[in-house]
Amino acid sequence: METDGQLNLLTDLYQLTMAQAYFQNARMEPATFSLFIRAYPPNRGYFVSAGLKDVVEFLEGFSFDAISLDYLHSLGLFADDFLDFLKGLRFSGEVWALPEGRLFFKDEPVIEVTAPIVEAQIVETFIINQINLQSLIATKASRCIHAARGRAVVDFSLRRTHGIDAGMKVARSSYLAGFAGTSNVRAGLRHGIPIVGTMAHSFVSSHESEIAAFRNFVKSFPNNSTLLIDTYDTIAGAHNAVTVGREMATRGERLQGVRIDSGDLAALARQVRQIFDAADMMDVKIIGSGGLDEFDLAEFAAADVPYDSYGVGTKMGVSADAPWFDIAYKLVEYAGRPVLKLSTGKVSLPGKKQVFRLTAGERQLQKDIIGLRGESIEGAEPLLRQIMQDGGITRPLPTLAACREIFREEFSRLPSPAKAIRDPVFYPVELSARLLELRQEVERQVRASS
Amino acid sequence: METDGQLNLLTDLYQLTMAQAYFQNARMEPATFSLFIRAYPPNRGYFVSAGLKDVVEFLEGFSFDAISLDYLHSLGLFADDFLDFLKGLRFSGEVWALPEGRLFFKDEPVIEVTAPIVEAQIVETFIINQINLQSLIATKASRCIHAARGRAVVDFSLRRTHGIDAGMKVARSSYLAGFAGTSNVRAGLRHGIPIVGTMAHSFVSSHESEIAAFRNFVKSFPNNSTLLIDTYDTIAGAHNAVTVGREMATRGERLQGVRIDSGDLAALARQVRQIFDAADMMDVKIIGSGGLDEFDLAEFAAADVPYDSYGVGTKMGVSADAPWFDIAYKLVEYAGRPVLKLSTGKVSLPGKKQVFRLTAGERQLQKDIIGLRGESIEGAEPLLRQIMQDGGITRPLPTLAACREIFREEFSRLPSPAKAIRDPVFYPVELSARLLELRQEVERQVRASS
Repeated sequence: METDGQLNLLTDLYQLTMAQAYFQNARMEPATFSLFIRAYPPNRGYFVSAGLKDVVEFLEGFSFDAISLDYLHSLGLFADDFLDFLKGLRFSGEVWALPEGRLFFKDEPVIEVTAPIVEAQIVETFIINQINLQSLIATKASRCIHAARGRAVVDFSLRRTHGIDAGMKVARSSYLAGFAGTSNVRAGLRHGIPIVGTMAHSFVSSHESEIAAFRNFVKSFPNNSTLLIDTYDTIAGAHNAVTVGREMATRGERLQGVRIDSGDLAALARQVRQIFDAADMMDVKIIGSGGLDEFDLAEFAAADVPYDSYGVGTKMGVSADAPWFDIAYKLVEYAGRPVLKLSTGKVSLPGKKQVFRLTAGERQLQKDIIGLRGESIEGAEPLLRQIMQDGGITRPLPTLAACREIFREEFSRLPSPAKAIRDPVFYPVELSARLLELRQEVERQVRASS
Repeated sequence: METDGQLNLLTDLYQLTMAQAYFQNARMEPATFSLFIRAYPPNRGYFVSAGLKDVVEFLEGFSFDAISLDYLHSLGLFADDFLDFLKGLRFSGEVWALPEGRLFFKDEPVIEVTAPIVEAQIVETFIINQINLQSLIATKASRCIHAARGRAVVDFSLRRTHGIDAGMKVARSSYLAGFAGTSNVRAGLRHGIPIVGTMAHSFVSSHESEIAAFRNFVKSFPNNSTLLIDTYDTIAGAHNAVTVGREMATRGERLQGVRIDSGDLAALARQVRQIFDAADMMDVKIIGSGGLDEFDLAEFAAADVPYDSYGVGTKMGVSADAPWFDIAYKLVEYAGRPVLKLSTGKVSLPGKKQVFRLTAGERQLQKDIIGLRGESIEGAEPLLRQIMQDGGITRPLPTLAACREIFREEFSRLPSPAKAIRDPVFYPVELSARLLELRQEVERQVRASS
């Protein structure tokens, strides 16, 4: 968790003012909130679940420390008895959730939290923040993997992610979705992700000549050097790399690869490949980078551009074409009574729910049905599992490696049209008859009483 | 700083491999790196400097702890003598920088770091990460302030920012650019920013009726209630708020405002304003929110839509229309020798630099000249100031309140065409004759030797 204290103040003020109103009006019944995404951003037809681990750790550690309570007191907004209540507050509820790495679709609950309403409400901001970011990036990264058609993709985004926490979560979420590694050294330490790197332009420009820079670098990494060849002129850089690679060969060393980071990346890759092949250096790999995203990777794959792997940075790390999800955490039940909102364009589904996934034949995903928690649907897999009860975790969460495998396996079962990089076909999601009935019934009641 | 340890591993692996190559090749001369933005994103004609405070704190605290060194050792990439060197490494360099809150433009250096090359290189990733995010958001937020034409704007973005660090930095950067407050409680504690809040839809839907919810809320906040009126039907909600406002008046209390968060925000504001005015409640404020950005705010201002203030969230908090800057940190001098790179579309300016700002008449900004550090230009203000020397801070940084005032004052002096929300006119930035000469000279040398 990327924070140096007062984690529970990572909330919107209104969560605390509402909490005081609930407290003072003695409305402390259990509430269920449901987290879901309302709409697909452009060119998205599925989402990848990520971020649950941080949510669970946050809920387990939930409490207000003295610094937080002093600050809240200083605002002059809160009554002493309410602040006393906050002092003893812990998360005591239950959580049902979709495991990390699994696919989900528009309107499907990813997490449902049931707890006394104050507890379930205050944690909203943090839960949305983490699931939004991590699912956003896992989804974007999965598109890169899909577009690259088997070539390795690594995360080079740390310098342009939105801050430190994002940098760490992007490394983790992209690895979960199949990336081969990250340049982020700290993510290597924290999450056990393979770390990767080449060299920067500054290494070249700090030397009197490019070839002098290459020679100095391979001296330090005789078996693990990828030379950046575009600082001055990519073709001249490739010839310099050939020269250095030959010098290495005479010493029994091997040049691992070169990286191209600017210019016409497709044309340059072909020219550079020819230069190495003509020099009988077929095993020197070419890495492409420089503003790449899944659209470029798909184009390169379609045109057989001879890159062996890609470093993707900014556009993946901020999900540049869709930097946010229309994600919501909505009250769906209070004191046993199903509820919904009717705000324009934001109607919610009432009641505790379950998502059922149906498979066609042996493997391929067929459709999902959103139903009520208590339902069971013949032949369908219920996706939400209980992971917390009475504020404690009920089963250990899968490791990152296991989540990565969960994703890989399920993604291979999603029909191709839903994975299309542009204009995907939407995977079918239905509402169960019982959920439809309940929604109509609650809507009628709300319209009658409001 | 949002991190729980091993801060100095927040770097790209190649920074450390290059560092080892520098170390092993005994290339440890001073280097100067320059941070700048290469291009304007769509609809941007200026940038607001933000993030320097975190950079200075990072550089002051720079060191590798035992956990970090053990991890690096475990990778099998680094030699023991290099790891010993890292163990003792501190930042010992000097930093020149543009103060937070000041305006800058394409190609202008914002920070120049001079230090032994290993030190100046390893810190690149962190410096770019923080300046990119914070300047991105300060710039976006300044556009909201400009578009709102005097109406207050507050930050509601925490749930959709990219993680925890971003949530904290967005609150601070938007406040720096003139926001009136944030919903982020922890940012209130950390940065002394006013915190604000209303109520959520769940408060209404957890009650049996909307008016019951309103009554319960104002009981807890008799002088500080803003009621959310769009949970079911905004017009019916406004009438419920009038009823509750009248009940409050009989008790000597006052309804502060209402918030509209969905639907046709312009039309609804007019209808709701009429309802309150007809009820003789002219002083009830209307707050608009729900997917707003500077384009909406400009439209509302042009049409005199009667909002008193705005809560902006996601689109500001992720700078949705431009979620990244083409920002770079480039080597410009090594061992006293000016350098540049020539990569396609990424040519850099050699040498230690200074930015000179010229004013027309009394106040209005006229043009900037990028020159060499040692130059002085008659009547122009040199913008970069030395803030660190020998690894220590040379002068205390201005407070957040002071930075906010620095921004307010300078922004009022930027010609209006440069501030346009759409298609701004680019503010003139020239290169000094000496810098132009140096660039030509270095380019000639590089082309001759590479």
